[in-house]
Amino acid sequence: MEIKLVKDILQANEVIAAQNRELFAQKGVYVVNLMGGAGAGKTTLLERTIERLKGRRRMAVIEGDIATSRDAERIAAHHIPAVQINTGGECHLDGNMVRVGLEQLDFDGIDLLVVENVGNLVCPAEFNIGEDAKVMISTVAEGDDKPLKYPLMFQVSSVLLLNKMDLLPYVAFDVERFRADALRVNPRLEIMPISCTTGQGLDTWLRWLEERTGLQAR
Amino acid sequence: MEIKLVKDILQANEVIAAQNRELFAQKGVYVVNLMGGAGAGKTTLLERTIERLKGRRRMAVIEGDIATSRDAERIAAHHIPAVQINTGGECHLDGNMVRVGLEQLDFDGIDLLVVENVGNLVCPAEFNIGEDAKVMISTVAEGDDKPLKYPLMFQVSSVLLLNKMDLLPYVAFDVERFRADALRVNPRLEIMPISCTTGQGLDTWLRWLEERTGLQAR
Repeated sequence: MEIKLVKDILQANEVIAAQNRELFAQKGVYVVNLMGGAGAGKTTLLERTIERLKGRRRMAVIEGDIATSRDAERIAAHHIPAVQINTGGECHLDGNMVRVGLEQLDFDGIDLLVVENVGNLVCPAEFNIGEDAKVMISTVAEGDDKPLKYPLMFQVSSVLLLNKMDLLPYVAFDVERFRADALRVNPRLEIMPISCTTGQGLDTWLRWLEERTGLQAR
Repeated sequence: MEIKLVKDILQANEVIAAQNRELFAQKGVYVVNLMGGAGAGKTTLLERTIERLKGRRRMAVIEGDIATSRDAERIAAHHIPAVQINTGGECHLDGNMVRVGLEQLDFDGIDLLVVENVGNLVCPAEFNIGEDAKVMISTVAEGDDKPLKYPLMFQVSSVLLLNKMDLLPYVAFDVERFRADALRVNPRLEIMPISCTTGQGLDTWLRWLEERTGLQAR
């Protein structure tokens, strides 16, 4: 009974996600669903991304949070269109929440829309929102055992950003073990070690985004 | 409709949690529900706790994970009773999962049972499991904005362990801001800065546990 209900919820979500996907295609906007645990550095990565794409791609952001509009305020300070969705306790964004957010967002002429999901390594992985790609952040501070312990998010993501590489000297984290486990869970995963503090690896991430967005990509 | 259903699930959980609580009281065991995001250091804290309580309190552990039995293996290596619950994708433990785990656990004569919840700063906070106290871990690597962004877990916890204090020199984290925000969300919260790497603060944590467990506490 409970399983049946979960199935219904997920199926209803797929319908709305498909409608979102159609709208994104009409507008010619590439959409990234950015996921990761609380404190993995999603908003900071977004800030670094906005700074570096300035003048090269037109970006907009939807911020998903349980409470507060702090992240949307951080993004809006960079003078790009940003909308906050407060989930009111819910642990993830779904297609319908994103649809409601889209109604408040003017994204004509936007090349790239990043939807920052609720900080949670588990639930957001279950819900499509109509995105072109799921991108996840994990960090060296979180430990190298995450791919096998939280496999779904690693399975559904196209890109895995391994953040906080600047902390590597101070933590017990085996990058090769992490990489091997992540690829065992998802052999197609593109793994990019980065640091939003030092800038390490951000060029690779930016190149990945630029290849998928903007006029030459259409 | 969806809200009604969530209410029913939470009420059904309360019934089972109350049965667990009764069983714990009969057995004279103190039960801690240990929560925190993925990679906050829950299992490492447990290992340090087991080592230090050895010969002073009799401990048992229930490990909640989405997949793998890695954490239970880490705990079992310390030669105390340990049971693994795999939630099969679910993002939290509930009263019933814990009840099933208890059936496999011999806890006669046990002073302290720690239930390590699934790594997730959101969902576990919603489900009582019959525990005496909820204890949460947050880390300086996760950022100092968590109490206001993920308020429920801070609200329901008795103790907040601020872990990875050894990383403080390498991250942007304002301990006073974090502490003020956490206390704004929950004025009764006991906040203990700790490091499982250096041992900082663990004495305070152990004293808190010892005061609540063992013969003199009954």
